Parts: sequence; C-alpha cells; structure tokens
Amino acid sequence: MPAELLTVSRQLVEVGRRFDARGWVLGTSGNFSAVLDRDPLRLAITASGLPKGDLAAEQILEIDADCKTTGAGTGRPSAEARLHVEIVRARGAGAVLHTHSMWSTLLSDRHAAARGFVIEGYEMLKGLEGVKTHEHQEWIPVLENDQDMPRLAGEVRDVLIRHPACHAFLLRRHGLYTWGETLAQAVRHVEIVEFLLEAVARTGNLPLDDERRGAGAIERERT
Amino acid sequence: MPAELLTVSRQLVEVGRRFDARGWVLGTSGNFSAVLDRDPLRLAITASGLPKGDLAAEQILEIDADCKTTGAGTGRPSAEARLHVEIVRARGAGAVLHTHSMWSTLLSDRHAAARGFVIEGYEMLKGLEGVKTHEHQEWIPVLENDQDMPRLAGEVRDVLIRHPACHAFLLRRHGLYTWGETLAQAVRHVEIVEFLLEAVARTGNLPLDDERRGAGAIERERT
Amino acid sequence: MPAELLTVSRQLVEVGRRFDARGWVLGTSGNFSAVLDRDPLRLAITASGLPKGDLAAEQILEIDADCKTTGAGTGRPSAEARLHVEIVRARGAGAVLHTHSMWSTLLSDRHAAARGFVIEGYEMLKGLEGVKTHEHQEWIPVLENDQDMPRLAGEVRDVLIRHPACHAFLLRRHGLYTWGETLAQAVRHVEIVEFLLEAVARTGNLPLDDERRGAGAIERERT
Amino acid sequence: MPAELLTVSRQLVEVGRRFDARGWVLGTSGNFSAVLDRDPLRLAITASGLPKGDLAAEQILEIDADCKTTGAGTGRPSAEARLHVEIVRARGAGAVLHTHSMWSTLLSDRHAAARGFVIEGYEMLKGLEGVKTHEHQEWIPVLENDQDMPRLAGEVRDVLIRHPACHAFLLRRHGLYTWGETLAQAVRHVEIVEFLLEAVARTGNLPLDDERRGAGAIERERT
Repeated sequence: MPAELLTVSRQLVEVGRRFDARGWVLGTSGNFSAVLDRDPLRLAITASGLPKGDLAAEQILEIDADCKTTGAGTGRPSAEARLHVEIVRARGAGAVLHTHSMWSTLLSDRHAAARGFVIEGYEMLKGLEGVKTHEHQEWIPVLENDQDMPRLAGEVRDVLIRHPACHAFLLRRHGLYTWGETLAQAVRHVEIVEFLLEAVARTGNLPLDDERRGAGAIERERT
Repeated sequence: MPAELLTVSRQLVEVGRRFDARGWVLGTSGNFSAVLDRDPLRLAITASGLPKGDLAAEQILEIDADCKTTGAGTGRPSAEARLHVEIVRARGAGAVLHTHSMWSTLLSDRHAAARGFVIEGYEMLKGLEGVKTHEHQEWIPVLENDQDMPRLAGEVRDVLIRHPACHAFLLRRHGLYTWGETLAQAVRHVEIVEFLLEAVARTGNLPLDDERRGAGAIERERT
Repeated sequence: MPAELLTVSRQLVEVGRRFDARGWVLGTSGNFSAVLDRDPLRLAITASGLPKGDLAAEQILEIDADCKTTGAGTGRPSAEARLHVEIVRARGAGAVLHTHSMWSTLLSDRHAAARGFVIEGYEMLKGLEGVKTHEHQEWIPVLENDQDMPRLAGEVRDVLIRHPACHAFLLRRHGLYTWGETLAQAVRHVEIVEFLLEAVARTGNLPLDDERRGAGAIERERT
Repeated sequence: MPAELLTVSRQLVEVGRRFDARGWVLGTSGNFSAVLDRDPLRLAITASGLPKGDLAAEQILEIDADCKTTGAGTGRPSAEARLHVEIVRARGAGAVLHTHSMWSTLLSDRHAAARGFVIEGYEMLKGLEGVKTHEHQEWIPVLENDQDMPRLAGEVRDVLIRHPACHAFLLRRHGLYTWGETLAQAVRHVEIVEFLLEAVARTGNLPLDDERRGAGAIERERT
C-alpha cells in the first residue's frame, strides 16, 4: 500500500472507531472517504459490508471517478461511493462522511414531506465552516431514499446546486451525509450536525410546563 | 480446551465485552452460542449466571443437542440453551445471540397483544441478511415470556415455522433473539435490530409540531 | 494496608470505574462498602468526597460498627456509612452499593407519596437473588431524603423490617441503595435495578398509538 | 513549556478526554482554563478550534488579563477567554469550565424568558461547594447568547454580581459555564450541574400515570 493511502486509511480507521463508540455506525452501516488526488480523481473509501468500529487499514480501497477499484485492496467499494464522488465534485470536498444515526433517521422521516428543515439560533452552528454567528440559518435538505444509485446521485447533485450553502443533507430514514475540506473538518461537521439534530428533536419533547407536577424547575427571577 | 472451542470462546468473550459496553447485557443477562459441529450437533455457549462484559474463555461451555455439557468447562449451560438449539435447527444458524436491551423490552411489551409488529422503510433493514431494499417489511414476532423451557422451545419452533423469513424475535418484557450464518452476521443482526427497535420506539415520541414552542426546526423549502 | 483490605479495595476501585462509565456516580456521588469481618464488624468503605471513577486503593477506609476509622487510610468515611452498617446488620449483606443515577432520582420523586412501587413482569427480575420467575412482584420502597443520618438510619431499619423481601430501596431525589451476599452480587443488583427503573420510567413514555404518524411499527399478524 | 504550565496543561487535556467521552464537547466546542498566577493574572486556556477529546499539552496557551498570549504555545486563545477572566475575577475561581451539552442547550432555551430557574430538592445539590442540604435552592441564571464578547462579558459580570451565590450559569442555546476553587472542584461542578439539568428536564417528561397502559410500576404500599 502506498504511504499516502496508508496514512489516510489509518485516519479513516480511527474515524470508524470513534463513530462506532458513539453508536453512529451500527451493524455495518456508514461509509467514509477522503480525496487522495484530484486530477485525475482518486478517493480512499471504506469497503462495503464491514463493521466500522474495527476496520483494518487494508479494508480501505482506492477508487477512481467511476468508482472502480484502482489499488491493491480487497473487497468492493461501498455501493454509495457514487454519492461520495458527487459531493467531492460539487463541493471540492477533501473528505465525505456518511453515518446512520438515530436522530438523523428520525428527523429525516419527520421532515421528508417538506424536503428539509432549518436549524437556527444555536451556538453550535458556528462549528460549521464559514458560519460566524448563532443567528445563522442552516437548511438541512432531506432526500427520499432510493436503491437506484445513479438516480440518487442525480438527486444529490440537484440538491447541492439548489442549496449551495448547505453543509450536510439527510437521506430519508437512512442517515446523514456531510463533508469538509479536510477529514478533520468533516469529522467536526458530523459531530456538530448530530448534536444539532438531537437538540432539535428533543426540544419538542420538553414539557411545556414543569410546574404541572410540582417538581423540578421553578421559573422566577429572585433578585 | 480444544483449539476450535478456544477460538470460538474468545470470539464470544469479545461479543460480551462489546454488548456490555452498549448496555445490552446488564447484570448477568443475555447468552451467546456458536455452532462447533452439526453432526452430531455441538454448541459453544455461555455458562449461566455470569456478567457478560468480563467473561473468560473457560466460561464458555460445550453442549450437545440435549443441552448436556460435553466438554471440560465448569458451570451450567444457560437455562435458555434449549432455545438456542431450536434456532440452530430451524434456521441452520451458525450462531445465536440473546440480549436484554431496553428497547426490546419496551417494544415487546407494547406489541405483545398483536404477537408482533412490522418494521419497514428503513435503510438499516438492508443490514439483515438477504434484504435488498429499505422497502422490505420485517415482521418481528413477539412471544409471551415463559419459565417452562420445553414449552417455550415449542413456541419458538412454531414461530420460526410460521414466519420463515423473520431474522429475529422478541420474548415479552424479556429481550431479543437473533442469529446468523456466522457469529459476525449474528452480531450485525443484533446491532441492526437494536437500532431499528429504538428508531420505531422513538419515532412515536417525536413531537407532532415543532413550531408549537417557537423553537428548533422550522419546515419550509427556501429555494 | 493488610492484604485482605487491599484485595477488597481494588475490587471497590473497579466498581467505581465501571459505575462512573455508566454515569451512575457523577461528581463525587455514590459510596460502596464490603464486609471485612462480622464479629466484631469491620467494613471497607469509600472515603467521602472523591470522584468514584478514579479511586485509588488507599482511598478505601476500614471502619467499625460505629463508623469510626480503624485502619491507616486517610480521609473521612462517607457520611452515609451509618446506612451501610444498618443494611449489613438487617440483611447480613456482604456488600452495600449506593448510586446516584438518573432513573432512581426520577422514580424516587414520582413514587415518594406512595412510599414505593411494585415492579413485576420483567425477566430481568430474575437477576435479583432468590427470584425464580418474571411474575415476581418486587416492592421498591422510597424513603424521604434526610440530612439527619441517625434519623435516616432509623427509617432505613424500619423499612428493611417492614419489607423483608426487598432487594433495594430508593432515597427520594437522591439515589439507590442495594446490597448482596458478595460484592459481585451487589454489583449485579445495581445493574438489574437500574435497568428495571429505566424500563418502568420509559414504558409510560412510549406512544399509545404508533400509527398516528403513519410511521414506524404497524401491528398486524400476517400469517 | 514551564513545568507549572505543563502540569496544568496535562490536567486540562485529561478533562477534555473525559468530557468528550460524555458527549459534552462535540465538534470543537467547549473551553477550559485554570489560573497559573493571580498577580498579575495568568491563565492556562485551551486554544480555539480544537477537538477537546484529543488535545495535546502544547495546545494549552498561557494568557494574561487582557487575553493576550504570553507563552510559547501556538494557536489563538478561545474567543470566550474574556468570559473566563470575568469569572476568575468575580469569583476568585481557580478554574473555569465551559461545555456545550444537550441538556444545558435545551434548558437554557426553555428558561431564557425568565432569565433563569431554580433547582431544589436534589441530594446532588450537595456536590456544589458550600451546599449542605438537598433543600438548598440553586438559581441557574440564563443569559442571551451574544457574539459581541465585550458586551457579553459585561452581562456575565452583572449576573455574577446579582447572583452572588450561584455556582454556574447558562448561555441560551449555547452551553454551561461553571468554575471552582480548583480544577477538580470545577470538574465536579460540571458533573453535578449536568446531572441536575438532565433530571429537571426529564422530570417533566415522566408520565403522570403509569397505570394508563397497564404496565410498569403500580403504586401501592403492601404492608
């Protein structure tokens, strides 16, 4: 394995370990990629059907812009490699991460009919590249899930054009895609978006009136 | 301990460590088995009454089709060994895993009267062996819990015949049984089913209308 | 430090590490003890005011039946040492564990007026020593919290007499006390009771009707 | 790096690892400081824009009372360094910790209009320095979030004057600030306040009536 691919592979292995501990890539779900070269395009990407918490560097494959394996690694590239390539092209991303988390699954379902939703007002939004204030409005597009990858890749392309400022999108009842200029930035975007999705989902579940049970928090300024 | 049993035992020890970290085998709950030989049937299975996060390889026993200990290990086989044998026979499984998780306990209770429920529409369903699309409908049978093991084994046999395509079943207020051709596949099935159970349980808890509190997500397509 | 105390201390350190990882002893909450001798009574117990995830063996003290430090360790015994002694006497316990978990805090508050509640129907109940069936009814007494330790110790004594079969009790908005013949049994009881408390608390939160949102689980037997 | 700064830096690195595991500093959120000297004031503080679970000691900077870097470290001090300095001055704190947790985000939003809320009745309150009884009433001030740091620092100063007994405050939809005489005390305060916030938030979510579903806990005193 070339030194460059080995370095990137070890970083992707570590991302898998971290996301597995958080419960974001259960079973063999999720896939991760990082750009090795842009001209012509070469990507390091996780092989299909493997548990992400326990990857070996040899289980990271090198593919080209047609998602064909070009290196010596074993296994098939992820079926969703095509979506990674679309994102790299549309955004100039250096890394693309896809997780199957609880909150992305739940919110993608809830907001599918509206084709997305806005998150605004959270300090954590500033963790998204280029965002300078919590007053930022981040539109999270939601796409219908689809097993036809060329068709889904086209939908992804359209969404990225229609929402040029978005940092992530959800596939309905499927999961989260986000990306970054570097792998570290993409990891940060996963953590930020996951936090925001959970906050949005849980906000609606908080009771309207704590006092109804005579318990917990009592609102009154005392000074 | 024969080399073959030792290898399998170490794998079961690792499954215990992993599931304990996820909170799926609290106390001394859960039991795991893997087929050593099919003719005559020999299974490696966890001994009864042990915490699963901290097993030693010697705490995995070898049993025959009558659930009698045949090897040198100490301890009694799990009282539910009989259910493992039923599943191995009915499905040709190479490994059977039983967990006592929160969401399997809650959903098994909720859907007991209907004797089961369907999960459909989730990409994660594709983690179940043979499932090719998120549009798959997976019936999760729920059986009444029973301390009479021969009787419960008969119920398990019946359910597996009536639902030849199911990948898992729940015992009411008790937990999950799933299996796989290999131990790795059975582990994957546990993680997939656990995720799906949590998603189904939490879906109903999401607020119908985020806007009622003027907070969080606002649905509108902006382009 | 005598070899006997050192061995027990290391076991209590490990309990602290495990419970801290589960979030059951945040801050410096919780305290653990194990019997060293019964006549006269000597207990190994955690010193007061220390984070439990990172204990050193020297932070475990030896105390007598009057909760006076008898060994060489530094620090004060926990203010609740008196409750440990009451439990050891009333139940002949070999170890007593006290945690400050989320679910024990919430349920102790909810059921304080009724002075307790029953848990029944869960397979996990069989993890409580002597329980043979999920049909067992376990009464969980709830006591009002009190900073007056002699008075609270008297309340504990009374509750243990009135509920001779109980395996645990809760202090209101405070936490869980449970015990065992051995430290391993007491650890098992913590994990079992914590699981049951969460199951009971979450059961009421499950939606009555999954179908109302057209999502998730659909109940119908298909064969 | 001077030995004193190195020692403190290693402690802050360990705080980062611990809080990251709990999910309190996702992305690159959160910042931590500890006083090195009081006259003139020198603080060790985390550099801006770094993931807190994987800090190196060199990523801790030394700053003065004007938040200017005075040591050899690389990177910019956190933009919120000014808030740390305000807290150190107003409270004589030896360490200040800021986290972006789920429950602080949710409750800060809910109680923003009332500019705070009381927590009372929990044993865990005794983990706050100087609190002797669960009957203590702890006012948690909530400030509007603001990207103008000098202005926000002024608001923080005012709140600390108006609530001289408070141990922590929240920034709306942003996170928690707490402090301590020592770093260990500040860590304890984070864990205590996080626990209390979760307890308060979840209390309102518990069902009013467990029996409505014929499940779980039944309230009745049996003796």
